[in-house]
Amino acid sequence: MDEAKQKKQSHKEERKQITLNQLTGLGQEIIEDIEKNKVPSIKIPSRGTGNIVYDDAKRYYVLGDRFGRRSLGNVKQIRKLGQMVYVGNFCKDLVAREKTATIREMYYVSEGWGISFKTQQESNIIGEDLEVKLGVTREDLGLMPEEDGASVYGDITLFDETQINAAKVGKSGYTISPTIDQVEFIDHNVDKVLAVETMGMFHRLVQENAHKRFNCLIVGLKGQAARATRRFLKRVNEELGLPVYICNDGDPWGFHIAQVIISGSAKLAHVNEQLATPDAKFIGVTASDIINYDLPTDKLKDVDVMRLKELSKDPRYKTDFWQTEIKKMLKIGKKAEQQSFSKYGLEYVVDTYFPAKFEEMENQA
Amino acid sequence: MDEAKQKKQSHKEERKQITLNQLTGLGQEIIEDIEKNKVPSIKIPSRGTGNIVYDDAKRYYVLGDRFGRRSLGNVKQIRKLGQMVYVGNFCKDLVAREKTATIREMYYVSEGWGISFKTQQESNIIGEDLEVKLGVTREDLGLMPEEDGASVYGDITLFDETQINAAKVGKSGYTISPTIDQVEFIDHNVDKVLAVETMGMFHRLVQENAHKRFNCLIVGLKGQAARATRRFLKRVNEELGLPVYICNDGDPWGFHIAQVIISGSAKLAHVNEQLATPDAKFIGVTASDIINYDLPTDKLKDVDVMRLKELSKDPRYKTDFWQTEIKKMLKIGKKAEQQSFSKYGLEYVVDTYFPAKFEEMENQA
Repeated sequence: MDEAKQKKQSHKEERKQITLNQLTGLGQEIIEDIEKNKVPSIKIPSRGTGNIVYDDAKRYYVLGDRFGRRSLGNVKQIRKLGQMVYVGNFCKDLVAREKTATIREMYYVSEGWGISFKTQQESNIIGEDLEVKLGVTREDLGLMPEEDGASVYGDITLFDETQINAAKVGKSGYTISPTIDQVEFIDHNVDKVLAVETMGMFHRLVQENAHKRFNCLIVGLKGQAARATRRFLKRVNEELGLPVYICNDGDPWGFHIAQVIISGSAKLAHVNEQLATPDAKFIGVTASDIINYDLPTDKLKDVDVMRLKELSKDPRYKTDFWQTEIKKMLKIGKKAEQQSFSKYGLEYVVDTYFPAKFEEMENQA
Repeated sequence: MDEAKQKKQSHKEERKQITLNQLTGLGQEIIEDIEKNKVPSIKIPSRGTGNIVYDDAKRYYVLGDRFGRRSLGNVKQIRKLGQMVYVGNFCKDLVAREKTATIREMYYVSEGWGISFKTQQESNIIGEDLEVKLGVTREDLGLMPEEDGASVYGDITLFDETQINAAKVGKSGYTISPTIDQVEFIDHNVDKVLAVETMGMFHRLVQENAHKRFNCLIVGLKGQAARATRRFLKRVNEELGLPVYICNDGDPWGFHIAQVIISGSAKLAHVNEQLATPDAKFIGVTASDIINYDLPTDKLKDVDVMRLKELSKDPRYKTDFWQTEIKKMLKIGKKAEQQSFSKYGLEYVVDTYFPAKFEEMENQA
């Protein structure tokens, strides 16, 4: 316990020091310009679509090498640069005091800054600018999005204020904190992670003892995965070496919830290195599953078809697996929810479907 | 611990027995008709708007005494009655095996029934019909909605599979399970409950140690409270005698999130007795707070104005307090979010606003 606590402290302390150093560096960059009698300006990697590149080796989007400059010599940029300094200062205070604020709170705090944000959008942009400029995450800066972290159930012990075993905190499991990087993994007794889109499926898995039968952690994503959830999945995959399997609804939206976990998003190209888990695997519901298991389906809507066609052109979907499944879904014109396996009884998904999928995965590996 | 476990078992066993008895009774009602050579029919309290009455003494909506009959002698009702028997049978199996299913899973399970549901809506209605017919909740029947339970942080020990203290399960706290009635309260060391609309405010309260400073449980509602959350608040209020205070955004939607916790909804009049907490108090953000604290505001939109006018005519809002606040908000034409207190710094809401509110409440009591 004491050793665990110390380990936790060191990881947390390290990220804290890096962040404080980066923030100090930002201030120094401006001060140096002033000392050299230059108009202060700072270099920021461009986040324009032209500078977002899919990296084949890394298997996620990254930023290219284009930079922009934000200068106090440019009337249009004064406001943004001033806000960035204010936000930097606010974050430095947060980090030093080991506090966090929601981006909504920061928006209101800015009322006292003289150059307050006019819209939430304006303050979000400055937050992302700081991320990309400093190479740390918004969470490292103490700025928390208001998203609901996933639920985790199974035999992992972690340190989040206190020592917690995620199989001993109630049926709904441990909720991933927005401050997931302050959490340390202490011990675990599982050999994989099974992440599912809906809490309906999460509760089914818990109830059928899937965590014991498959020796896995069960993660309930609650739809599109929060940043903290993506960070958690990446950390268990890389720090603990646990394979991550994702099972979502069999439709373009379920596909993409998995893909954002696997390959990150274009919009957050600058932090994908911290968020993407390229080795995570989508195991279903695939178009092939819909056919093979004769699942209850709904007809694809126009918007589903449009979305599937978009995905087929997206570099993240260029593997044979995805191309085949997208084409097959378009051909059958149908989609299926993950809970539709209960056509064969509530236990079927745990008794039959997941064992078959895990065997398939092991044969591939 | 053993005693606690036993206590939990007895509460759970009692509800289980009542539910099984009620389900058996439903079957007997039909069998008795057959034995008397009568066409089977069952009596169901009407849930039509004409039979939903606001009960002044109880301070929530209840069903009146009108009944309808569903008869196998009526061609239009055969399908519904047949489905109800199937659902009753499905639920009896769930309860006996101590399992649960989502209403979505039941929808798919019905594929094997011959008279499967054509829409989710159709199966929802049968679920509610059973609730009203049997006088038990859908959750007692093992049917779970797919809603996200609130987060609870603070010094309460409860039994949910295992013994849990809600201050020792991580920064995001204990998540209320859909099966909240299987959870037993073992011990607590708080004297009130503070429920807030947003997880942003929840994390602020946890971070500022509000649970210790106010000796309270902190509950993060995540918007409109799930049925399990409402049941939890009612149980802590009535079983543990803890006053419940609710603080939401200062707009008609925040008002109504509180009001549904306090007085229940018209749609669920038949289960308000299990869900409503008439003694819970809305403490803010009020229109008066917006003025007194000079909060950052947004202009009321047309839809806000319309909604406020609706609320002013709703029997649940007939007290002087609500009438005054609704009129005041319409007059100033403005609304404010609960996080807007951070205009005065992140800690202001805990240092100044809540202490003032709690003092006000104590003086009223």
